[in-house]
Amino acid sequence: MNEEVRSSAAAILARDRRALARAITLVESTRPRDRARAEDLLKELLPATGQAMRIGISGAPGAGKSTLIEALGAEIIGRGKTLAVLAVDPSSTRSGGSILGDKTRMERLARNPKAFVRPSPSGAVPGGVARRTRDAMLLVEAAGFDVVLIETVGVGQSDTAVSEMVDVFVLLVGPGGGDDLQGIKRGVMELADLVIVTKADGDLAPAAARAAADCRTALHLMRPKYPGIAPEVMTVSALTGLGIAGVWEALEGLEGRLRSGGHLEGLRAAQARHWFWSEVSALLQESVAADPQAAQEARQIEAGVAAGRELPYAAARQLISRFRSLDGRKDPP
Amino acid sequence: MNEEVRSSAAAILARDRRALARAITLVESTRPRDRARAEDLLKELLPATGQAMRIGISGAPGAGKSTLIEALGAEIIGRGKTLAVLAVDPSSTRSGGSILGDKTRMERLARNPKAFVRPSPSGAVPGGVARRTRDAMLLVEAAGFDVVLIETVGVGQSDTAVSEMVDVFVLLVGPGGGDDLQGIKRGVMELADLVIVTKADGDLAPAAARAAADCRTALHLMRPKYPGIAPEVMTVSALTGLGIAGVWEALEGLEGRLRSGGHLEGLRAAQARHWFWSEVSALLQESVAADPQAAQEARQIEAGVAAGRELPYAAARQLISRFRSLDGRKDPP
Repeated sequence: MNEEVRSSAAAILARDRRALARAITLVESTRPRDRARAEDLLKELLPATGQAMRIGISGAPGAGKSTLIEALGAEIIGRGKTLAVLAVDPSSTRSGGSILGDKTRMERLARNPKAFVRPSPSGAVPGGVARRTRDAMLLVEAAGFDVVLIETVGVGQSDTAVSEMVDVFVLLVGPGGGDDLQGIKRGVMELADLVIVTKADGDLAPAAARAAADCRTALHLMRPKYPGIAPEVMTVSALTGLGIAGVWEALEGLEGRLRSGGHLEGLRAAQARHWFWSEVSALLQESVAADPQAAQEARQIEAGVAAGRELPYAAARQLISRFRSLDGRKDPP
Repeated sequence: MNEEVRSSAAAILARDRRALARAITLVESTRPRDRARAEDLLKELLPATGQAMRIGISGAPGAGKSTLIEALGAEIIGRGKTLAVLAVDPSSTRSGGSILGDKTRMERLARNPKAFVRPSPSGAVPGGVARRTRDAMLLVEAAGFDVVLIETVGVGQSDTAVSEMVDVFVLLVGPGGGDDLQGIKRGVMELADLVIVTKADGDLAPAAARAAADCRTALHLMRPKYPGIAPEVMTVSALTGLGIAGVWEALEGLEGRLRSGGHLEGLRAAQARHWFWSEVSALLQESVAADPQAAQEARQIEAGVAAGRELPYAAARQLISRFRSLDGRKDPP
């Protein structure tokens, strides 16, 4: 461990926001040297992580995520807690590349000294998004934030990835009727521990109530994730403030029940185990990909399997034995 | 390839049912020698596979799966097709060990020469269930069956596993009200390409209609798996025969649309690719598990990660390098 890493760790533990921002940039880097430093840093900070409430928040574009996060963030800070907001957006290719990069979004929250708002990395490689977001979450925890909110736009596998790193997963739904609701990606509804129907004000109030009833029916059809803890459906308005305090209380209540029931410990251990085995698999694939000849062979093997010409068993053995023959020192870090 | 394997393959291609039954027993065996023969056999038969309609069918106990399969099977055979029914039941530990082992179940279908009914293997290891069911599916395809129906009781990961090997996934729901419907496992509803509400006869008819409406609402909230193909909800009665022909027509229609849209080819290629990478991962884990010392180390590494004492990155590298140090010849076949 070099001196730079040690002083960076000390600064983060002392809640230095600039050190925190630099460390997040470091964990987002894909350069081997940065990666090695990032892991040293994370290792140093690991004992100081794990105390925050980890909340995931998903919803289709237009569901009102940033508006709700602003309102909910103000509520959380008003109750004396500190809040970090991280964003996951693997699809972003816009200049600046960030769903939070737009300066008009979460402006108030970003200026609040009790909050830390971090846009998603630009040009993110989809596979690396989960890894970097987990790392960033550990960093903000080490910097002492009480609540970590991870926002996802629900593209590709990002909802699942986020649900696998948080304690509580919140789904935001706009007040539109059935047609709008069809935008909910398959599989997201049953990740939800809490469903929030937004924009329940003015002309949209009746539509929001109908959407909430629809969501209740849908959730009613599913077995609860934790026995005895059925997901709630709430309607809110960031405009009038309706329901915002209730959302926070529901989240705190959920987290409390998870902690007291021993569910949280089990959940986090299972998440860590799953993460570990994904890393093993990713490392293996990266090792093969890093060797041009092995990578070429792996593509041919995979294509034979996909076309139904080869059985996966023999193909997998072929790949594994190719992997064994690689020089371990050439592996990516 | 030995003579025994070659003659077994020839017999299966000639639609010899006893040879087929023996081959399924062979692919279910976990003995290394049987496994090697099973793979030789599958390799020989691979070119003759892939022509069947692959249908998965799931539902909670009591939803009426076996009764529906009997009725649907009679319908399919009545239309001049042959049908193989395979069962997946990783939880079964009863004597005989099979959800289809009960002689009173699917008795008519099992006696029909156009049908082949195969109970799930007894004492099945959960992880091996998907592997063996896929192998059995390839075998019945090579034996010329037009339709393969894979029944799952939806315990653990078996629904997901089955959905990853079939073209069309059917969810059966009993006519019970909300309380009953809560039995649907989270995540199963959105695997469904078709939802069937059973027992829509007599006193239960109104309840079945309500359950169907609830399912429609739930599905309405989800984006279709294939663009433009929204999952249908049907009510049936195996007692009166209501809707049974319709179910078969819906299944044929779905399969036809998948085939003509090029979706099916893409789906099966993606399934094969996914299967391949799971095999790679399974092989790696099995290699480590087969070496007592490496297995012990792997457990310690995993426990450190689960307890939050270790970062998955370094732990994964440790495991991979331990794997590299193993003698490849000791790997399981």
